[in-house]
Amino acid sequence: MSYDLIYWLDLFGVAIFALSGTLMAGRYQLDPFGVVVLAAVTAIGGGTTRDIILNVPVFWLADPTYLYVILLTALFTILLVRKPRLIPKRFIMVADAFGLALFAVLGTQKALALGMPASVAIVMGTMTGAFGGMLRDVLCNVIPMILRQEIYATAAALGGGIFVLLVKLDITETLAMLLAISVALSLRLAAVYWRVSLPAFAFVDQELTNKSSKR
Amino acid sequence: MSYDLIYWLDLFGVAIFALSGTLMAGRYQLDPFGVVVLAAVTAIGGGTTRDIILNVPVFWLADPTYLYVILLTALFTILLVRKPRLIPKRFIMVADAFGLALFAVLGTQKALALGMPASVAIVMGTMTGAFGGMLRDVLCNVIPMILRQEIYATAAALGGGIFVLLVKLDITETLAMLLAISVALSLRLAAVYWRVSLPAFAFVDQELTNKSSKR
Amino acid sequence: MSYDLIYWLDLFGVAIFALSGTLMAGRYQLDPFGVVVLAAVTAIGGGTTRDIILNVPVFWLADPTYLYVILLTALFTILLVRKPRLIPKRFIMVADAFGLALFAVLGTQKALALGMPASVAIVMGTMTGAFGGMLRDVLCNVIPMILRQEIYATAAALGGGIFVLLVKLDITETLAMLLAISVALSLRLAAVYWRVSLPAFAFVDQELTNKSSKR
Repeated sequence: MSYDLIYWLDLFGVAIFALSGTLMAGRYQLDPFGVVVLAAVTAIGGGTTRDIILNVPVFWLADPTYLYVILLTALFTILLVRKPRLIPKRFIMVADAFGLALFAVLGTQKALALGMPASVAIVMGTMTGAFGGMLRDVLCNVIPMILRQEIYATAAALGGGIFVLLVKLDITETLAMLLAISVALSLRLAAVYWRVSLPAFAFVDQELTNKSSKR
Repeated sequence: MSYDLIYWLDLFGVAIFALSGTLMAGRYQLDPFGVVVLAAVTAIGGGTTRDIILNVPVFWLADPTYLYVILLTALFTILLVRKPRLIPKRFIMVADAFGLALFAVLGTQKALALGMPASVAIVMGTMTGAFGGMLRDVLCNVIPMILRQEIYATAAALGGGIFVLLVKLDITETLAMLLAISVALSLRLAAVYWRVSLPAFAFVDQELTNKSSKR
Repeated sequence: MSYDLIYWLDLFGVAIFALSGTLMAGRYQLDPFGVVVLAAVTAIGGGTTRDIILNVPVFWLADPTYLYVILLTALFTILLVRKPRLIPKRFIMVADAFGLALFAVLGTQKALALGMPASVAIVMGTMTGAFGGMLRDVLCNVIPMILRQEIYATAAALGGGIFVLLVKLDITETLAMLLAISVALSLRLAAVYWRVSLPAFAFVDQELTNKSSKR
């Protein structure tokens, strides 16, 4: 059964987004509990919005494991990363890309399982993937990633679309999920990488650190 | 029956707000799908918030027509408007005024139809009208129109209030709706026009472009 | 019965947050109805989010008293405070601290009464206390208080945690509530005070106005 896989992927996505929220928070010298709040908004903001719109019980109410994963991720990150301001923004973007791809496909899957039409399911997936990071960016007064030039919402929607397509082609849900996540993640990572490397393609190795910290 | 009229007005409002979201997005050089996301947030953000608070099924879940209207509006706008940065901000404000007036009255009507008291219905209308544009502005890191000097929330609340009043006076719902929308729209447009023209009323013709692009 | 106490505390919290929203709005020279909207978002944004996530009827739909309290608070504040720009930001922070402490404990209490586990109840309390002010700050394009250095989310979570603990120790709900509110409020006020006075503790009297208006 793929239910277990979905659950573990979901927890992994929560941890990844909590990490990205914690690192972003680290740039603002919050007190530790403020960091946990920002991590939580990033990690469960998308899925919470999805569940509210679909009018199903919000996923973390019945299973506080999600809250503990966020708390532990934030605390470990705070303890291990001593100088959050030195973490390149690109690292946050890579963690964010993982969360985006995972949640876009998992959100699409959940909406399909609830009997939503394909178009609504893809919107729900995009929202699950993008809204947590969007809330994080809005709170930090940063223009959200979804409003930047690189392929962001496109990657999420493509992941959801491929999942819908593969499921209609009668491929097993587990395989469809892993394929769709891989495509969305690759596209988003390629976009992040391309954006940084294109202006000076031949000089990537030397200039990588400067460029990513400049962003 | 006025249900058909409401449906078409609703779709028109969605298209108008999707246009305003697309034009706003055009200033940020997003990829096309990011534009669609911003258009969607603007177009259905208000009604979605209303339906969630009223705890009724979110209106676009059962009828994906809304999503297609947003998609098509955004794509047509992208294709037809080649230089979004040249569109004066005033144009976005006029499209926004149409959406505000329409949704304020439609939202009030929906809440009344669900048996809400008049005060709650007017709040729901104001929210339906103002929240989509508010989310758009927050995402774009712009101070929301609702927080600017011109009559904005007032126009929305007045539209809702007039609708409630006319319905209580036993005027047909269709007429009440059209009257209330007209008043709210006129008030908002007058406010937009007044703001721009007052400081140099005699010089409007020459200075119009500068002023509206300065804003 | 402590239900009446809860109701009055709730209305008091709404008034306090409406005051803080109105004062914040005063800095932007909105039209009066725009002020009311910002006051309302601040005052009922947190509890509305809580009720939506818990999937219970939103508290102000059935009892428009909340809306009237907001309306009256905003109008009185507008009439009495002639120069909102002269109000020191610290005053807004103190009103905000009251609302934060009150709503954090009341939100925790409501979630517990609905049978939520302690961890979820504390999250709900923190959200009830912090989200209204967070929405206010996001709308005003200000970095939310929750993302500032001073103990903010910590005070809310501590209030919720102490309430949970005291209730488990079989202390009466009323007493538990008042104790938990006092602790959260004291911690937050101490944090606000400490931040301002620490850098030049001996000079507080002379420098108070400069410092608080600088913030």
